[in-house]
Amino acid sequence: MSDFSAKKRVGIIGGNLPDAQSLKNAERMGELIAQNGYILVNGGMRGVMEASARGAKSANGLVIGILPGKSRDECNAFVDIAIPTALGYMRNPMVILNSDIIVAIDGSYGTLTEIAYARIYNRIVFGLNTWNIEGVIPLSTPEEAIQRINQYFNNQ
Amino acid sequence: MSDFSAKKRVGIIGGNLPDAQSLKNAERMGELIAQNGYILVNGGMRGVMEASARGAKSANGLVIGILPGKSRDECNAFVDIAIPTALGYMRNPMVILNSDIIVAIDGSYGTLTEIAYARIYNRIVFGLNTWNIEGVIPLSTPEEAIQRINQYFNNQ
Amino acid sequence: MSDFSAKKRVGIIGGNLPDAQSLKNAERMGELIAQNGYILVNGGMRGVMEASARGAKSANGLVIGILPGKSRDECNAFVDIAIPTALGYMRNPMVILNSDIIVAIDGSYGTLTEIAYARIYNRIVFGLNTWNIEGVIPLSTPEEAIQRINQYFNNQ
Amino acid sequence: MSDFSAKKRVGIIGGNLPDAQSLKNAERMGELIAQNGYILVNGGMRGVMEASARGAKSANGLVIGILPGKSRDECNAFVDIAIPTALGYMRNPMVILNSDIIVAIDGSYGTLTEIAYARIYNRIVFGLNTWNIEGVIPLSTPEEAIQRINQYFNNQ
Repeated sequence: MSDFSAKKRVGIIGGNLPDAQSLKNAERMGELIAQNGYILVNGGMRGVMEASARGAKSANGLVIGILPGKSRDECNAFVDIAIPTALGYMRNPMVILNSDIIVAIDGSYGTLTEIAYARIYNRIVFGLNTWNIEGVIPLSTPEEAIQRINQYFNNQ
Repeated sequence: MSDFSAKKRVGIIGGNLPDAQSLKNAERMGELIAQNGYILVNGGMRGVMEASARGAKSANGLVIGILPGKSRDECNAFVDIAIPTALGYMRNPMVILNSDIIVAIDGSYGTLTEIAYARIYNRIVFGLNTWNIEGVIPLSTPEEAIQRINQYFNNQ
Repeated sequence: MSDFSAKKRVGIIGGNLPDAQSLKNAERMGELIAQNGYILVNGGMRGVMEASARGAKSANGLVIGILPGKSRDECNAFVDIAIPTALGYMRNPMVILNSDIIVAIDGSYGTLTEIAYARIYNRIVFGLNTWNIEGVIPLSTPEEAIQRINQYFNNQ
Repeated sequence: MSDFSAKKRVGIIGGNLPDAQSLKNAERMGELIAQNGYILVNGGMRGVMEASARGAKSANGLVIGILPGKSRDECNAFVDIAIPTALGYMRNPMVILNSDIIVAIDGSYGTLTEIAYARIYNRIVFGLNTWNIEGVIPLSTPEEAIQRINQYFNNQ
């Protein structure tokens, strides 16, 4: 078994009902995260969460899903380590605490809570077609994001 | 004792270190909330929270403070009902759940988490010099805000 | 308005489906807490919680209910200050954090979580026909309990 | 990578400062859990948590640690998947929600909160020299416990 505790973690946050481009970005982002040796963390549910998890699994990555409910059964099919919290939307800050750096893709107010918690807890947030606010660094492609993520971890 | 359970509650969210105008707005907003017969709910700490609580007490209002820590002692001097949560920043959604409508004044990322939770939980958010984003209805003065709040409760 | 922030708080924890004697004890305990000038804190729901709140209101006391759900509407009719938490059973430690001393009456595993958190957070627990374990001081009547509570607060 | 999402999870709860026999039991219990193909879940800290994690790693098991604080760095050296929660003692019910069945070893009031939550959430609790209360099935050895755990999962 590879040493999971030594691996960096990238969180992907985003909407339940993204458009086709954001779904594609989420899947590609998950794939790149896995290919670069990082663990993917997300909220374990549908939309951007499911697409990014599918992408990570396509590259044999590990996916941690921080779930809103009480049961592991509710999560999407691509989560390896499902973590039920019973906190509902109040589990959102926990997605951030479990990630070292964040990519936001699409998303509505749930994603906005996570962006804000990311800034409270000092995580960098890269954005792909998401909330255009101070604190989100807007990028154009998953490839650009993974380059910036690699830079960040290499400079630590 | 008046019947607290029948009273509407107005939440004020906002920064720890507001400028002079926002402090003044917070204090006046608290005063107006109390004068109009509403309970003030906030996070119980400093800045906008303390100023609004002081305003509410100057008009003999009731103030509920949803605290981040474990002890009632940490809150500002104007809170009547201090509610320690031990949740840190994760208590922010609880400020929203305990309010029927929200006024945001100034504020940084903590306030942004609360604005986003307010939209998730279907609370209207009026803003006085705060985050300029979709979901916040920008107003100019506390007087304008209380008029809109009264309208909202009267139309329910 | 009396100064609520200066008042001591007594928490009553206990079962949803108590027998007649425990219901009677809960109501009397609530009444005594109010008569002695303390605020009653409980979980805001049925059984021991409702009976103790009814007792406190019969003596013009103030009742704070720390609710498991998202809405103030779900609580019993005798709560003055309802605090929705959206935490479900995970709100139990918050009942303890909001109380200075605890009386346990009847109760099952929910009550047991609260007894255990009371000991973690250094609250004394008096018991009336409840879990017979280390950390609970068993007493026979509400009158005996209020005497011990008064003693405790007077010696602080 | 083996399919973690299909694996059953056994939670071990217990004290920070166990005696030598309980430490030995915890380590052996962790080893047996891993040898039998289950994931070990615990609170990620010291004492019984650390000993059981060490045991599981000695048999190449996977260990999930549900941490009280904000950082992955605080956990013991044998946790593979550290899950910071920022909830302090309020993370205890999450240890239970993340386990399918529970073994309690030694332990004080933190462990008692977990035993009680296990019964609320319908998890069977086996006990090795722990709280002697209704709801805990007392056993004598880790070997006896793993036999009962295997029986339970085989009969599902």
